[in-house]
Amino acid sequence: MLQSSTAALARERAQLEPVFKYVDQHADAFVERLRTLCQQPSVSAQNLGLEETFAMVEDMARGVGAKTRRIDLDGGPPILHARIGTGARTLQLYDHYDVQPPEPLELWQHAPFAADIADGRIWARGVSDNKGNLVARLCALEAYRRALGELPLRVTLLFEGEEEVGSPHLRQFTDSPLGRELLAVDGCIWEAGYKDPVGRPTVALGCKGILYVELRVRSAAKDLHSSWGAAVPNSAWRLTWALGTLKDARTGRVLIPGFYDRVQTPNDRTYALADREPFDAAQYRTLFGIADFLHEWDGREARRHYLFDPTCTICGLTSGYQGPGGKTVLPAEASAKLDFRLVPEQDPDEILRLLRAHLKAGGFGDVEVEEVEGEGERAARTDPDAPIASAVVETARELYGLEPLVLPNMAGTGPQYVVAGQFGVPAVGMGVGNADSNNHAPNENIVIDDYIQGIKHMAWVLHHFAAA
Amino acid sequence: MLQSSTAALARERAQLEPVFKYVDQHADAFVERLRTLCQQPSVSAQNLGLEETFAMVEDMARGVGAKTRRIDLDGGPPILHARIGTGARTLQLYDHYDVQPPEPLELWQHAPFAADIADGRIWARGVSDNKGNLVARLCALEAYRRALGELPLRVTLLFEGEEEVGSPHLRQFTDSPLGRELLAVDGCIWEAGYKDPVGRPTVALGCKGILYVELRVRSAAKDLHSSWGAAVPNSAWRLTWALGTLKDARTGRVLIPGFYDRVQTPNDRTYALADREPFDAAQYRTLFGIADFLHEWDGREARRHYLFDPTCTICGLTSGYQGPGGKTVLPAEASAKLDFRLVPEQDPDEILRLLRAHLKAGGFGDVEVEEVEGEGERAARTDPDAPIASAVVETARELYGLEPLVLPNMAGTGPQYVVAGQFGVPAVGMGVGNADSNNHAPNENIVIDDYIQGIKHMAWVLHHFAAA
Repeated sequence: MLQSSTAALARERAQLEPVFKYVDQHADAFVERLRTLCQQPSVSAQNLGLEETFAMVEDMARGVGAKTRRIDLDGGPPILHARIGTGARTLQLYDHYDVQPPEPLELWQHAPFAADIADGRIWARGVSDNKGNLVARLCALEAYRRALGELPLRVTLLFEGEEEVGSPHLRQFTDSPLGRELLAVDGCIWEAGYKDPVGRPTVALGCKGILYVELRVRSAAKDLHSSWGAAVPNSAWRLTWALGTLKDARTGRVLIPGFYDRVQTPNDRTYALADREPFDAAQYRTLFGIADFLHEWDGREARRHYLFDPTCTICGLTSGYQGPGGKTVLPAEASAKLDFRLVPEQDPDEILRLLRAHLKAGGFGDVEVEEVEGEGERAARTDPDAPIASAVVETARELYGLEPLVLPNMAGTGPQYVVAGQFGVPAVGMGVGNADSNNHAPNENIVIDDYIQGIKHMAWVLHHFAAA
Repeated sequence: MLQSSTAALARERAQLEPVFKYVDQHADAFVERLRTLCQQPSVSAQNLGLEETFAMVEDMARGVGAKTRRIDLDGGPPILHARIGTGARTLQLYDHYDVQPPEPLELWQHAPFAADIADGRIWARGVSDNKGNLVARLCALEAYRRALGELPLRVTLLFEGEEEVGSPHLRQFTDSPLGRELLAVDGCIWEAGYKDPVGRPTVALGCKGILYVELRVRSAAKDLHSSWGAAVPNSAWRLTWALGTLKDARTGRVLIPGFYDRVQTPNDRTYALADREPFDAAQYRTLFGIADFLHEWDGREARRHYLFDPTCTICGLTSGYQGPGGKTVLPAEASAKLDFRLVPEQDPDEILRLLRAHLKAGGFGDVEVEEVEGEGERAARTDPDAPIASAVVETARELYGLEPLVLPNMAGTGPQYVVAGQFGVPAVGMGVGNADSNNHAPNENIVIDDYIQGIKHMAWVLHHFAAA
């Protein structure tokens, strides 16, 4: 990566002192602003509270001085686009105002939309993924402008409301003339980032793609007495057997012919980035409560597979009787939710075709495959030498006092390809989460100190990227 | 089977005319009596309403003149035992006052505990299995005694409250000195029977055994973001793969070593009974809404497999996210409910041991196996020449005007071995259901005319068995 001098960074820190002071003085208010947003449910999978949340986010953006624009999508919640600042460069901040469903509710120690503060953390669905980042960025814009005056660059905000369901309507915007105009920027800060278990800030230079499908079998018009299991097809068995053909129990390899055809082994530099900082396998094992990683991989191996392997994951199974005790029923219907995390060059549309062909060829033509989250996402990967990448890494190193963990890509997914990658815009993920943030799981949380640091980091990135 | 003369049966019918008249005159009241019992939920799997239902059944038994006895079980709902009548022979009527869970509720066209009357039927959870039979038998005792005086034989009632969860506490009674004394009878009418799709009454000379287990996998302390699927074990995959080792997708054969070791091919007479009356495969296909039976079996084949094959049936699957839309989660827990229907000589305890050993040997030591419904049940089979079998068949033939369908055994299960089989007591199933009764499924129902006929049939069986 390009290197700024230590002196230059020290000078920037001095210039930013008033901004950091403003952040510290307004820390409580910034926390309350985030809590308020988290208390408003916005579950895209359940079409819950999206319009209300859009209105709150729009108000917040106006509140820090941005000029907002509502972009309506046919069949989905609106996008908020906003502009603020002047200068040579344009930096886009991509976030989403929707969150994952909170279920299973009984496993939460704090109500998911209460945004309780406890143990120095804020606990809420979406506080890490991604409302904490969204609000931190707005707070950074406010702090910079109040402390130092107008921003030294153009910032655009792009806040969408369907990221957690695969952004199924986003292409209406990204593929439109307006989208192409607004998305032509010099760099993009991507939604998320976290501190790893030893406290290092992570910086992600891309993300995986995704295909999310539901497999469904209907074997009869109604549930039957299970004694008929001797003579009548059973949807749950059909589903189980069909799933068994998708992934090898011993190797974990996906068995769909053609699945790996376009997968390229990462180059040495990419592996080196991944390996540079060791992955504390023991710490993750404790965090996750797992006996071991797959195949007893050590930290380096687990990390490489996590970052670079395409996956096929059962996210949910449902069939028949699931209550207490026993019910002797032959279930008429069974379904599974599956996600495939994809790596660069894999095309979700192609994987869907391969999956359907494989099931049909294997005698599972009775297993319906429906894509759940729209059109899937392609993977994206950013050049480590891009100016926005350097800006994020160098300022993180200075601010946090630790060498950041630069990930060639996140293991997660987002519409980075359609928003940035397809236009050649380098995108870099950073954010306020932690290794125990429980994204997509019960007890999602962020550490308040991380949130305050994240606001400062965002301000520094703006300053540095404008000057570089 | 032993044959009574046509003249003798005609004489019996004439003797019973006052009983049948009483039944017809009290048909509305008998229907209301049944509706009242069905309106009281008694879901043993959910420990719901059992004591209340026991009290209602006890009142009903007393109301027809029986001397009742409450038999408490440690950890389960009480058994009602009752005596009525005098004579040389003792006939036991076995029924249960508990019902299956009503879920999934949204598929019911009438509320499951409303006991609505529509289209000449009563719609309620448990109306066919088995409250309709229980009340019909009490009505038969009342009608006989009111019309003809005291019963010509001793009748004992044995009504338990946990049949639908495998009677896990029943052996406390059946294996006790009191149980051995009370269960030493000359014949037993078993709980259930139905008209087949062309209206023939079925008579069942036994039932299958059962083992009901829950398989559970816990792969992590909490649900994780599904991106971890590349490196962290997934409970849903582990469960899917483990299930896949239990049953062959192509042949449908159970793959647990030793599972078939004790299974004996039925003898020619048993096959002949099963084959005597053709099984209308097309009619069942329509009823069930299935494209075909397994392996495109024709009616005779499907019927033989239904009656004589031991099974391994997935009754339920649950893991991860099951709501609308998508949630990208790596599920920490997955479970399956499985029932094995067993044939004579198969021992549920042994099958459980074989299952556990098979999973362990196959590398699935992480899959816990817990028996859901107590100790399992062994299969039971009654000699077609037993006097109670002849009594049921001959009177059914006369009353219904159709040749009854005599089944060597039901495909379903009950504690017939512990209640009757182990004491050498012949047990015969008969009842008021129909081929579309939806036992264990939504929209359970019986036809009111079948119920009234069933009361008359029971009265005739008492009369005939006492005289034979």
